[in-house]
Amino acid sequence: MAKFQLDKTLERDCIEICNLRLSKLLLMNDSRFLWCILVPMQEGLTELYQLSKTDNNILNDEIIKLSKILSDEFHADKINIGSLGNIVSQLHIHVVARKVNDPAWPLPVWGYEKPVKYKKSESVNIIKLLRIKFNNRK
Amino acid sequence: MAKFQLDKTLERDCIEICNLRLSKLLLMNDSRFLWCILVPMQEGLTELYQLSKTDNNILNDEIIKLSKILSDEFHADKINIGSLGNIVSQLHIHVVARKVNDPAWPLPVWGYEKPVKYKKSESVNIIKLLRIKFNNRK
Repeated sequence: MAKFQLDKTLERDCIEICNLRLSKLLLMNDSRFLWCILVPMQEGLTELYQLSKTDNNILNDEIIKLSKILSDEFHADKINIGSLGNIVSQLHIHVVARKVNDPAWPLPVWGYEKPVKYKKSESVNIIKLLRIKFNNRK
Repeated sequence: MAKFQLDKTLERDCIEICNLRLSKLLLMNDSRFLWCILVPMQEGLTELYQLSKTDNNILNDEIIKLSKILSDEFHADKINIGSLGNIVSQLHIHVVARKVNDPAWPLPVWGYEKPVKYKKSESVNIIKLLRIKFNNRK
């Protein structure tokens, strides 16, 4: 099997948080939303149904755990989950903590105006907390 | 447990296809896209993580099966899957067969301009095929 390589657009637009059992966890570098992305670390995937049943269940567990963390620790009003891939074809799943007063509410975040990058100090605390919650202190 | 009732907005905007093991399968009444919705038939759900692990796995199976049918039978170029709920809070999962020449491509379908309702004859064939593929001839 070819070695997994993170898509160049995801690499450019996101900050790496840690590797989970199946997926690489990323933070979208857009401070308007708390927007995470899970990328299953298998080369060549574009659709969810290409994962084995076992891996699909693992991914599901990772989505659920991340959703609960975003709800509990970051006080999301709603979790938005999406697997699109219309622009970046490498399989990736968005898990976004939405707030009723965020700039795009109630519209989806995808394609919504221009991202606003984090200041380094802002993203550091988010990343630290997510690593602790996933027991991964890298 | 309170009896499940389909949200009034989903009822108004969609056509019922059939009931699966966990979810009610709907067709969004918007002929611009082949746009299905799965609604787990349990009252009071708003987030995926509120489902039991067993039910989450069943939902996952339903999403995968529906995605494969949309890919194989309707020649989707990409499957878009989303659980948003910013407007309709009842938990529901969108599974949309995207084509690179559909009106919204590569943007998401959610919130994209005005729906164009099906003519009855158009939707009947789609519904019939989906019922056959799910072995549910209601």
